[in-house]
Amino acid sequence: MSHNTFGHLFRVTTWGESHGPSLGCVVDGCPPGIRFTLKDIQDELDRRRPGQSRFVTQRREPDEVRLLSGFLTEEDGVTLVTTGTPISMLIENVDQRSKDYGEIARQYRPGHADYTYDMKYGLRDYRGGGRSSARETAARVAAGAIARKVVPGMVVRGALVAMGEKSIDRANWDWDFIGDAENPFFTPDRGSVTAFAEYLDGVRKAGSSVGAVIEIVAEGVPAGLGAPIYGKLDQDIASNLMSINAVKGVEIGNGFEAARITGEQNADEMRMGNDGKPFFLSNHAGGILGGISTGQPVVARFAVKPTSSILTPRKSVDKSGSDVDVMTKGRHDPCVGIRAVPIGEAMVACAIADHYLRHRGQTGRV
Amino acid sequence: MSHNTFGHLFRVTTWGESHGPSLGCVVDGCPPGIRFTLKDIQDELDRRRPGQSRFVTQRREPDEVRLLSGFLTEEDGVTLVTTGTPISMLIENVDQRSKDYGEIARQYRPGHADYTYDMKYGLRDYRGGGRSSARETAARVAAGAIARKVVPGMVVRGALVAMGEKSIDRANWDWDFIGDAENPFFTPDRGSVTAFAEYLDGVRKAGSSVGAVIEIVAEGVPAGLGAPIYGKLDQDIASNLMSINAVKGVEIGNGFEAARITGEQNADEMRMGNDGKPFFLSNHAGGILGGISTGQPVVARFAVKPTSSILTPRKSVDKSGSDVDVMTKGRHDPCVGIRAVPIGEAMVACAIADHYLRHRGQTGRV
Amino acid sequence: MSHNTFGHLFRVTTWGESHGPSLGCVVDGCPPGIRFTLKDIQDELDRRRPGQSRFVTQRREPDEVRLLSGFLTEEDGVTLVTTGTPISMLIENVDQRSKDYGEIARQYRPGHADYTYDMKYGLRDYRGGGRSSARETAARVAAGAIARKVVPGMVVRGALVAMGEKSIDRANWDWDFIGDAENPFFTPDRGSVTAFAEYLDGVRKAGSSVGAVIEIVAEGVPAGLGAPIYGKLDQDIASNLMSINAVKGVEIGNGFEAARITGEQNADEMRMGNDGKPFFLSNHAGGILGGISTGQPVVARFAVKPTSSILTPRKSVDKSGSDVDVMTKGRHDPCVGIRAVPIGEAMVACAIADHYLRHRGQTGRV
Amino acid sequence: MSHNTFGHLFRVTTWGESHGPSLGCVVDGCPPGIRFTLKDIQDELDRRRPGQSRFVTQRREPDEVRLLSGFLTEEDGVTLVTTGTPISMLIENVDQRSKDYGEIARQYRPGHADYTYDMKYGLRDYRGGGRSSARETAARVAAGAIARKVVPGMVVRGALVAMGEKSIDRANWDWDFIGDAENPFFTPDRGSVTAFAEYLDGVRKAGSSVGAVIEIVAEGVPAGLGAPIYGKLDQDIASNLMSINAVKGVEIGNGFEAARITGEQNADEMRMGNDGKPFFLSNHAGGILGGISTGQPVVARFAVKPTSSILTPRKSVDKSGSDVDVMTKGRHDPCVGIRAVPIGEAMVACAIADHYLRHRGQTGRV
Repeated sequence: MSHNTFGHLFRVTTWGESHGPSLGCVVDGCPPGIRFTLKDIQDELDRRRPGQSRFVTQRREPDEVRLLSGFLTEEDGVTLVTTGTPISMLIENVDQRSKDYGEIARQYRPGHADYTYDMKYGLRDYRGGGRSSARETAARVAAGAIARKVVPGMVVRGALVAMGEKSIDRANWDWDFIGDAENPFFTPDRGSVTAFAEYLDGVRKAGSSVGAVIEIVAEGVPAGLGAPIYGKLDQDIASNLMSINAVKGVEIGNGFEAARITGEQNADEMRMGNDGKPFFLSNHAGGILGGISTGQPVVARFAVKPTSSILTPRKSVDKSGSDVDVMTKGRHDPCVGIRAVPIGEAMVACAIADHYLRHRGQTGRV
Repeated sequence: MSHNTFGHLFRVTTWGESHGPSLGCVVDGCPPGIRFTLKDIQDELDRRRPGQSRFVTQRREPDEVRLLSGFLTEEDGVTLVTTGTPISMLIENVDQRSKDYGEIARQYRPGHADYTYDMKYGLRDYRGGGRSSARETAARVAAGAIARKVVPGMVVRGALVAMGEKSIDRANWDWDFIGDAENPFFTPDRGSVTAFAEYLDGVRKAGSSVGAVIEIVAEGVPAGLGAPIYGKLDQDIASNLMSINAVKGVEIGNGFEAARITGEQNADEMRMGNDGKPFFLSNHAGGILGGISTGQPVVARFAVKPTSSILTPRKSVDKSGSDVDVMTKGRHDPCVGIRAVPIGEAMVACAIADHYLRHRGQTGRV
Repeated sequence: MSHNTFGHLFRVTTWGESHGPSLGCVVDGCPPGIRFTLKDIQDELDRRRPGQSRFVTQRREPDEVRLLSGFLTEEDGVTLVTTGTPISMLIENVDQRSKDYGEIARQYRPGHADYTYDMKYGLRDYRGGGRSSARETAARVAAGAIARKVVPGMVVRGALVAMGEKSIDRANWDWDFIGDAENPFFTPDRGSVTAFAEYLDGVRKAGSSVGAVIEIVAEGVPAGLGAPIYGKLDQDIASNLMSINAVKGVEIGNGFEAARITGEQNADEMRMGNDGKPFFLSNHAGGILGGISTGQPVVARFAVKPTSSILTPRKSVDKSGSDVDVMTKGRHDPCVGIRAVPIGEAMVACAIADHYLRHRGQTGRV
Repeated sequence: MSHNTFGHLFRVTTWGESHGPSLGCVVDGCPPGIRFTLKDIQDELDRRRPGQSRFVTQRREPDEVRLLSGFLTEEDGVTLVTTGTPISMLIENVDQRSKDYGEIARQYRPGHADYTYDMKYGLRDYRGGGRSSARETAARVAAGAIARKVVPGMVVRGALVAMGEKSIDRANWDWDFIGDAENPFFTPDRGSVTAFAEYLDGVRKAGSSVGAVIEIVAEGVPAGLGAPIYGKLDQDIASNLMSINAVKGVEIGNGFEAARITGEQNADEMRMGNDGKPFFLSNHAGGILGGISTGQPVVARFAVKPTSSILTPRKSVDKSGSDVDVMTKGRHDPCVGIRAVPIGEAMVACAIADHYLRHRGQTGRV
């Protein structure tokens, strides 16, 4: 079952609401003997942290992670090593701005899960989105920081490639620019910053919001991970990405474009390299054939819908069955997709780490 | 674990290769007391069956399903009723055309799983694609025929909405046309048949292939199915659809389009109906908010890549590490996406049936 | 997978070591709308808490549970109600007596998991038994306190029925005596206290230890829970009980005695009651037939081995491959089985709660 | 979920009723490249097959297994090799003796699952015990034959050690005697045959039945398999054995005896061997410490209740709520425990194979 858990051998369980005392995760099944530091995890959390530019929510959260179990500390006092037992991580909720939830407690905000929670559970925690709060994704990022260490040599990076009507110029792709201080968008195209900024300022000032497309690339993934049918690597990556709030579509490699082209255009041809190893002449497949990794970079993209919290009133109903107009007040993300980049990376890293262990389990081949 | 099993309470395990004696599935966890007939299952299989037009593979398979366990027969000798124990279904492989696999046994066909199987398992069953054969999907369709009965009142239908560069005109959408004898494409648009036929004839005669986009709509899905985080209904639908061979992308509701629009445009507003029940003014969300069904139709689309088996030679390598040119001989599907329609329906039905039982288990609310 | 998780619909994941900052659990899949109080959980923990008599370890732990997620607080400020999202609970480790682990860090204590941890993981947290510490069971007891609320009307109670060579007189069975302040043994037989106390004082003073047999009885379990084959209710109860540290045997109903008697003696005959409901004339089956509950009390027993920590030196080896003599110093439980009573109750409650939800999911019949 | 599936990486799903056309299993997750023959599987089935002596049911079933998927045939036409895809096996039901089930269809036989099936499912397949038929265990034995090949060097053997009031003399233990043509009891004690035969003839002629205790020993199990908490090797062995029909108790190593002795008596001391490897001076633990294998033989025992089908009328009720007297007619096993020996071996082999793959997955250490 997977209400709040994902993965099989590398398993992540998250818990916590936006307005409770804390949230966190338990990472189970991590191999023993993996060295890491608290900073490795905190650095990833800091990339996701709100409040770092005017383009993301102004909620102020330090998002300091505490490690509660599953590791030993080496003599230097800094290096930690996994023991193979569950790693529990906890993040305090600090900025629980007190406010009157009177109306929101009863109204169903369009695009939010308010109505569906009531349909499912018969009750809901209306404070801050409850379990559906974007804060839950901090736990994923923390787990992903561990997952990155599981597959030797793997590097997982992500980039925002489109925001609303604006897209990057892929010819300008520069991974190094993504961590740049002048890049609040996780865009790999330095030339896109100004256009994105102007566009999003307009959206923000209008009290509106806009969607985004994120691309995740995992390099150093050994060939052979995945399974032909219901444990396809691309299937589990898609599942993990679709579990992120507000994601409405996922594609692998050339994705929906594959539906528009011919078999000749789509084929990734192969040749033997001078090093005696086969190589591919292209990567339309996104590094996965028949559900199994090819050794090429694994490429996935996902679409994030515009934040549903907007200043323009929208028609809705309330719990008692009355028509109401709903308007979001206060802080909100004009483009929630921006901060989805490190989250997407984490989810892809977790999927691959799980398949790495599964592959080793079944075949002993890595 | 889920190498060859999917679902939690409504679980499907499939087995079998294209060139073995048979293939089949075990459906576990089906509620007891569900009435069905052998014809219910056979009818679905017949929709997926190859050889029904010049546009699909000419392999001749009767695909007759045999029911081996999990049911009682009522006095009429026709009505079957589930007992709650595993339902085993078996389909013989009849048309295993004997041929010389000499080259294919050693060559890695571009776009196929040949190379990745060898990377994963160190050996492979090269006959007919082994486990990755499209024949495996017959087992899914059989399981889906049972799943359709699990949720009272649910109707799951699918349609091909694009083929290569050609798309349907959604204004002409007519579900009834899909089963029409003059419709070899599962298109809901009568006006598209001629254009699709001409286009695909050209593709077929050129020994080429082309991709497709399929849309699945599930009506009669009660509100409340799914979960906020890692058991989202859309996540499990996406996972199920991505597990189909050749699928490279999945989207829910307006999908990737959601990334291009604003929060105002994307919001599905609500009002109270004259019947005292809330209703939605639109369905951009595809019937799912926050991972939980809204009661609206659930809408999913998936992209199928062009068949990799084409007559034009492609560059590749073989097992011994030599460069080779690979060309597929014999029968092939010019657009494998056509027959994906009943498969997609089955996978969506299975996902919803599973969530229906999970929701009933946790909440007792249906 | 189930390294640190058990249950399917009612799922419990525990984490934490004896000598880390804290330990805890995440209870996932709990139905929404269940009312409980913090005291309900704390009371169960207090029953398991060490240091309450001279017969159990003198480690002083308040074992105060903190609730971190998954509930709403009602207006009285005391009543809590589950929301259906994961319930995270945390218990601080307070009494981590600082000591020199020099020898134990390298020696393999007979009967402990020291050697096997090194064989499995290549390293281990030698402080306080690491993950195998009896403290882990506090998390189970907390989870069990929630599980008790899931099945309406269910009451799960346990009793120590034998300690080493001494057994209770079942004719004296009095459930009410178990919570008595003069009963440090969870024995249901008032007459056994003196004998147990004298016997265990002897064991304790000799620096020795002794095993015990615990019986758990769950009343109010509706008929129909379980499954005929690999989801038998007795199987999952046995699995849950065997997962408790130091448990070496489990039996259901008359258990091993069933192997010694005839079919006539073992049959639980039935008759119709005056209330129009069938009843059983005996309960050799322990409330479970063919893996499914009968509606009678569910009865399970488990054997706990003597604590391996004893003062008499035992032959062993150390990490470097030298012969050593190992002797435990400091506090220890002379009969670890005593405190296993509330743990066994919790594990049985969790198994039944899970099957209650599974049964409701598949059949809709409760 | 595990209604009809067990194992995580090495997974077995069984299906089929006694009176349907066939029964079978799907073994998923088996490593690729394992060599075996059809005879390897058939030989195990033949050991379990009924009708081989007057002491077991006279139902005549050839129990011929058919392999349907998951293997390649080597050039010799006899050696099979696993491909890593699901292995489907099928056994026809041949001897479905036609009879009038009139009464049994309505009566609840004491000790059988008749009443509980109706409570669970609201209906049942009364023919031959439905899913609870002992025939289902043939599928387990077939799966176990594969599992035995997964762990290099592992040998799993079983023996009947007690039947009703009679026990073997362990001093006479001779594994080789178990396959002896003059040994219809799977007893390892040649001297016990006459006593068992006389005793069981008396039971049989009286139309009665009697229980048994079976011991399974797995040698060649590497140290390190299992997990400290909810994936203990002994827990999963216990779960697997408890899933066998009629099993009411399971113990590991000295089991319930451990509850009666002291820590000194129970400790398995260690010393370094001349080969530079540690060895144990005893094996009270049954090869498992803290849930993890020690490298010693893994020892488990289970208690089988007497067959509930007996000739003496027993009091019961029927579906319409009337008191009835139930008497079994026709063939029955006077001691169903005898044939449980190969079943127990299979279930232990499956549990260890699964943990072998899990251990390899998490740690890469075997």
